[in-house]
Amino acid sequence: DPKLKVFTCNANPELAKEIAEHIGVPLGNAQVVRFSDGECQLKLNESVRGCDVFVIQPTSAPVNEHLMELLVMVDALKRASAKSINVVIPYYGYARQDRKARARDPITAKLVANLIETAGAQRVITMDLHATQIQGFFDIPVDHLLGVPILGKHFSEKGLKDIVVVSPDHGGVTRARKLAERLEAPIAIIDKRRPEPNVAEVMNIVGNIEGKTAIIIDDIIDTAGTITLAASALVEAGAREVYACCTHPVLSGPAIERIANSKIKELIVTNSIPLTEEQIIDKITVLSVAPIIGEAIIRVHEELSVSKLFD
Amino acid sequence: DPKLKVFTCNANPELAKEIAEHIGVPLGNAQVVRFSDGECQLKLNESVRGCDVFVIQPTSAPVNEHLMELLVMVDALKRASAKSINVVIPYYGYARQDRKARARDPITAKLVANLIETAGAQRVITMDLHATQIQGFFDIPVDHLLGVPILGKHFSEKGLKDIVVVSPDHGGVTRARKLAERLEAPIAIIDKRRPEPNVAEVMNIVGNIEGKTAIIIDDIIDTAGTITLAASALVEAGAREVYACCTHPVLSGPAIERIANSKIKELIVTNSIPLTEEQIIDKITVLSVAPIIGEAIIRVHEELSVSKLFD
Ligand SMILES: Nc1ncnc2c1ncn2[C@@H]1O[C@H](COP(=O)(O)O)[C@@H](O)[C@H]1O
Ligand SMILES: Nc1ncnc2c1ncn2[C@@H]1O[C@H](COP(=O)(O)O)[C@@H](O)[C@H]1O
Repeated sequence: DPKLKVFTCNANPELAKEIAEHIGVPLGNAQVVRFSDGECQLKLNESVRGCDVFVIQPTSAPVNEHLMELLVMVDALKRASAKSINVVIPYYGYARQDRKARARDPITAKLVANLIETAGAQRVITMDLHATQIQGFFDIPVDHLLGVPILGKHFSEKGLKDIVVVSPDHGGVTRARKLAERLEAPIAIIDKRRPEPNVAEVMNIVGNIEGKTAIIIDDIIDTAGTITLAASALVEAGAREVYACCTHPVLSGPAIERIANSKIKELIVTNSIPLTEEQIIDKITVLSVAPIIGEAIIRVHEELSVSKLFD
Repeated sequence: DPKLKVFTCNANPELAKEIAEHIGVPLGNAQVVRFSDGECQLKLNESVRGCDVFVIQPTSAPVNEHLMELLVMVDALKRASAKSINVVIPYYGYARQDRKARARDPITAKLVANLIETAGAQRVITMDLHATQIQGFFDIPVDHLLGVPILGKHFSEKGLKDIVVVSPDHGGVTRARKLAERLEAPIAIIDKRRPEPNVAEVMNIVGNIEGKTAIIIDDIIDTAGTITLAASALVEAGAREVYACCTHPVLSGPAIERIANSKIKELIVTNSIPLTEEQIIDKITVLSVAPIIGEAIIRVHEELSVSKLFD
């Protein structure tokens, strides 16, 4: 059987280590460093000939550096005769640029998919894409994992009573529904509307939240504007307490300050993106996606090995 | 006839402005900025439908940012129905990673060529590629401009006497020969050899430099180690004075300090890469490539227009 090897670039080496441990293989010996002028230099220090290789690299900030590291790694693996090159992108950067929202917008999520295929990736494992349509941007298999089971398990174990799961916008209702099913709870939706141009948005809450424990769920929390305003609106409308959760803690700009000063009691995130030191605050709890990614890799490797019998 | 439009990203807007002025068109209205999390946001504020578009963007440091800006711009131009998308990359980053110098190296210069084509570029205009083989990494037309005429003109006008043109290594002899022909001067070559492993390199000078004005020429000056050591060796061997020149002033790490403290009397570079404020020192003279790039764009545009007649 072809050997399974796990490599990492620089975006989330801790997660890669955890995944390798879960699978029971050592992390591959490779480093991506920089030449004096800032160009990526890859040192691939072990053979990958004939191996099923998995590269762990979320394209989190600095996204352009991390994306290029991944592409260079894939290029080198291809030229070093890896049997299969599988890229594991727990957080898929540029996912929000998935359509022409304005005239002459790029569709960078599609561009990135093309770049990854062009470099030579043969399969993608990712999590909670901002839009599931992005799977269709690829012409190679995409395994799409979900954060809801991990987040749901955490809330179940907390033993919270009288829960309502809240979607912060219309786009997130399906995700909220999935979490609500796991928690056997109803859902509510925050219905933002701008009454007139240049007037602040009004947040209407659709659903009953009076006296309840609200859990807001989103895929990405970036500047945390939406989620902290939603928390205030929920408390004002009579929610007893407010939790929030997401898969991808982008947490850029004012996010940490906003969360610290918000009505959110606890924010649950995953380690699809590693937190920086300044982002580690008491209110934030991090759950690991290493077990589910590890399982996905084991299954893909088995599948690749089995299919070899039919080649 | 299709309209010619010139756009720039953030790598060298001053050069782009000069090129647009040379051609006699206004610079296109577009900005590449950043979202809060560092992702590129492109604002393409004018129509490009049916136009021959030229994007000026050397992939100088920070190379991964500048490369991604270019790719996003090309993606947007393609989706906005530009008639032709021509990328002008005066300095082609990653050019030195053009072969597997070590086992399992990536060939990033080829990867980058593939990325640029995948984004949708239909033609490349570039200058002094580190290896001319890189033209063959593309399956689209590549116009390859040379810095030698610009550098040669400068030295001719200086009226220097008793010149010898020096190549700092074997790889640069062809380039040195071209400059020598323009200056009607002989050449010399610096022949580096390491007598034993872990012993410092010895610089032998092949050719007569005694009492002469040496002009060292290279394509790229990066950390400036090679060129400053070469200058010392030339002076020690009896050269009267030493000038140096290159097309691409990468000038990373200790470069400026080394040049300032070196035996080099004057360093002539081009503006294929803009100098930062700290890089502007008295010893360095910058020549503009805007006229030759401007001419190349005018000719390509004419050619594109003519070929339209035969479509
Ligand atoms: N990194 C980013 N940060 C903030 N907004 C973005 C980012 N990338 C894309 N967008 C914008 O977000 C919008 C799409 O978000 P959504 O409506 O949630 O799918 C579009 O208007 C995009 O231009
Ligand atoms: N940005 C860079 N800075 C320094 N060295 C590089 C860079 N990119 C590639 N190289 C190395 O430079 C060598 C090729 O340079 P050359 O022999 O001048 O063609 C190879 O060993 C490359 O690994």
